[in-house]
Amino acid sequence: MTITITAFERSPDGGKGLARDTRVRWALEEVRQPYAVRLVSFRALKERAHLALHPFGQIPTYEEGDLALFETGGIVLHIAQCHAGLLPDDGNARARAMAWMFAAVNTVEPPILELGIAKLVEGDRSWSAERLPLVEERVCLRLKQLSDRLGDANWLDGAFSAGDLMMISVLLRLKPSGLLGEYQNLSAYVARGEARPAYRRAFEAQLAINTRPMD
Amino acid sequence: MTITITAFERSPDGGKGLARDTRVRWALEEVRQPYAVRLVSFRALKERAHLALHPFGQIPTYEEGDLALFETGGIVLHIAQCHAGLLPDDGNARARAMAWMFAAVNTVEPPILELGIAKLVEGDRSWSAERLPLVEERVCLRLKQLSDRLGDANWLDGAFSAGDLMMISVLLRLKPSGLLGEYQNLSAYVARGEARPAYRRAFEAQLAINTRPMD
Repeated sequence: MTITITAFERSPDGGKGLARDTRVRWALEEVRQPYAVRLVSFRALKERAHLALHPFGQIPTYEEGDLALFETGGIVLHIAQCHAGLLPDDGNARARAMAWMFAAVNTVEPPILELGIAKLVEGDRSWSAERLPLVEERVCLRLKQLSDRLGDANWLDGAFSAGDLMMISVLLRLKPSGLLGEYQNLSAYVARGEARPAYRRAFEAQLAINTRPMD
Repeated sequence: MTITITAFERSPDGGKGLARDTRVRWALEEVRQPYAVRLVSFRALKERAHLALHPFGQIPTYEEGDLALFETGGIVLHIAQCHAGLLPDDGNARARAMAWMFAAVNTVEPPILELGIAKLVEGDRSWSAERLPLVEERVCLRLKQLSDRLGDANWLDGAFSAGDLMMISVLLRLKPSGLLGEYQNLSAYVARGEARPAYRRAFEAQLAINTRPMD
């Protein structure tokens, strides 16, 4: 059955890997599943046809036969459960890897999203300069805790898993901020993720769409 | 094997169900699994013994034989996968229920967390009054989209699932804000969750801890 995902026709970051289809592409590349991509314009995101697939009007979505999914974490989990390569075989290790997926999106990502909003949406507000350090502090608390837990390990819990895929994808959003550089083991952890051939293929495929000439 | 979770010795909300052990208690009650509770003080959250269980120094944690888990979503997913009652049998419906769990914590909860921070942490800042409506707007965008998707259905996708459990738990955080009241179907959806016997048992058990006399 063909897998079809959606992605931005033109990504807000110009294809530098921050749009969330990267996470799904990466997962599909890790488990060596081919996929098709349907590109969506910003306008189409808010139209009825897309909202039927994705109630929050975002990308990516995932279609495979009768199954339609939205929400990156849910899609990556589905891929990881259907194909070998992203979750350990042992039941307990498997449960821990899934918990790391949730930790990435529910504990580490929220302050990082807040930082993005503080800069991109509220950057021109009167409070921006005074408030930004507070938000950065909340991000750094999580980074420090994550750094302490990772220590000098390569991955969060044994072999590379969907938990690492999600956590590294979340941390990648911090690249422009420079905050990651203060935690050497986290920078190295993210670099290890980016160096994986599957990540490279996902990144290049997204970049190619964003650097092609428009009709 | 005994299941042991951690919870606050004294919950910041006085036991009104907002501490995240409620989500885990609710899941365990839905699948009728008995559990023990180890209470943790705020100070102990930051100590080495607890950080070994939970790298971000929060509650709840989950221990069962050799397995130790943290992160509410991961714990609820583990419970839902091990016991009947929180996930559909059909593979596609199961994948969709898990995607709703992620949608709850990664798409709907972040602006709700931001609203909490804006009120509780930044409520005395000079920008608070001017900024609050912007944050509320971001919450309401998600509520509107969720309300549109739910329509007049009882639950998000067929029968009650772990996706509803997580989404209702996230929406419950909005009760003090009054924002939920603008979306009648969402208010009714949350009330349906609260009326479930398993939720009532979870809520009462947490409240009993927070209203007992301290030694």
